Amino acid sequence: MSPIDFKDYLKENFQIDFTDLDLLKEALTQRNYLNENPKETGRDYQRLEFLGDAIMQASVTEYLFKRYPEWDEGQLTEMRITMVQTKSFAHFASLIHLNEAIRLGKGEEMNGARNRPSLLEDIWEAFIGALFLDQGQVAVTSLLNQTVFAAVDDNFFDQFIDFKSRLQEKLQAKGTVDISYQIEDEVRNEDNSQVFTVSVSLDGEVLAHGQGSSIKDAEKAAAQKALNDLK
Amino acid sequence: MSPIDFKDYLKENFQIDFTDLDLLKEALTQRNYLNENPKETGRDYQRLEFLGDAIMQASVTEYLFKRYPEWDEGQLTEMRITMVQTKSFAHFASLIHLNEAIRLGKGEEMNGARNRPSLLEDIWEAFIGALFLDQGQVAVTSLLNQTVFAAVDDNFFDQFIDFKSRLQEKLQAKGTVDISYQIEDEVRNEDNSQVFTVSVSLDGEVLAHGQGSSIKDAEKAAAQKALNDLK
Repeated sequence: MSPIDFKDYLKENFQIDFTDLDLLKEALTQRNYLNENPKETGRDYQRLEFLGDAIMQASVTEYLFKRYPEWDEGQLTEMRITMVQTKSFAHFASLIHLNEAIRLGKGEEMNGARNRPSLLEDIWEAFIGALFLDQGQVAVTSLLNQTVFAAVDDNFFDQFIDFKSRLQEKLQAKGTVDISYQIEDEVRNEDNSQVFTVSVSLDGEVLAHGQGSSIKDAEKAAAQKALNDLK
Repeated sequence: MSPIDFKDYLKENFQIDFTDLDLLKEALTQRNYLNENPKETGRDYQRLEFLGDAIMQASVTEYLFKRYPEWDEGQLTEMRITMVQTKSFAHFASLIHLNEAIRLGKGEEMNGARNRPSLLEDIWEAFIGALFLDQGQVAVTSLLNQTVFAAVDDNFFDQFIDFKSRLQEKLQAKGTVDISYQIEDEVRNEDNSQVFTVSVSLDGEVLAHGQGSSIKDAEKAAAQKALNDLK
């Protein structure tokens, strides 16, 4: 997808009418692409990434601050770390097809960089920086409402949270405790998929049950359920 | 100075007409003050500090990005580190008399916390967070134009930059070099103040001279001059 095609895509899907195409190109351009195309006069994405990184941090911070008025700064910080991370930004970069629009050096293309999380994170931040310059904070917030912030409602970020560690920290805050997980049930469906049921216990007393298609997922679900019950 | 007096001070000196006095109070309140005054219903400054920290980072980033269009992301990052640091924020907190308005626990007051840089940094960030919520980014930028950004023009941040280390890094980038500083002159004024003149040399060849009221300051000035000549 060329930068112009991506511009059309943004207009059609997010009502973003990007004004400065050169700025959009800059956000989508990796350094080696410029080396290989000496006629290109623009820069690579790195300055815009510097800007977009700070805009993302501030946008997520404001969102969390207002959305969770009862949370203290520790809870807010924890959630921000979950949202502002490579895996998260790489996901949203692919979601809006930024990966298809990157102007990449040939060597990087051959090495599969186009879908590498670290590059996608950079490009997401650079794109947010360009959007901020071209359309202002309101447009950035509008895009985030349709992507990153919408994902909070869909519990998207739960996959990045280590609920077992969090439950342990919470329960151990008052002293040493014995937390154990036990497989309670295992069902094999006709298509050979499995459903495990696991219980989590505190000093021998069952706190909660969880289900999942693997033992690991079922344990995570049980820990998440126990954490919710504790709140 | 009470929060209401500080509100008046802001209006008179910065044309900031703070609407939500409770929000301003929250930004100025240290945790132990609440413990000692159980009738106070508000919170301490820590949530607002979480917000203001991100707003400061984004505001300084946008300022540097636009002010230095020719700088790469490395130079921008270096300057941001210099501007966004405890010593810097503590200075600006005192400059607008935030230190006088902090609602502090008695123990902290006795221990001299009112002018402790780490607390002043926190209060500066919390105040910026409150200002952002009450008056928006435009008001934050306006205050920063009169304080932090004005200080860039006054070379205020030079004091935080280690020019000798920076010169060494720059010169050594191409291999091992011999950098030496030599006192060239020393003048004692009638009031007993001294003026030192120091030269900095690269492999025996003088690069630049610097003057200062101490040898250390003169060396720093020479390194800064040499760095400027290299650009």
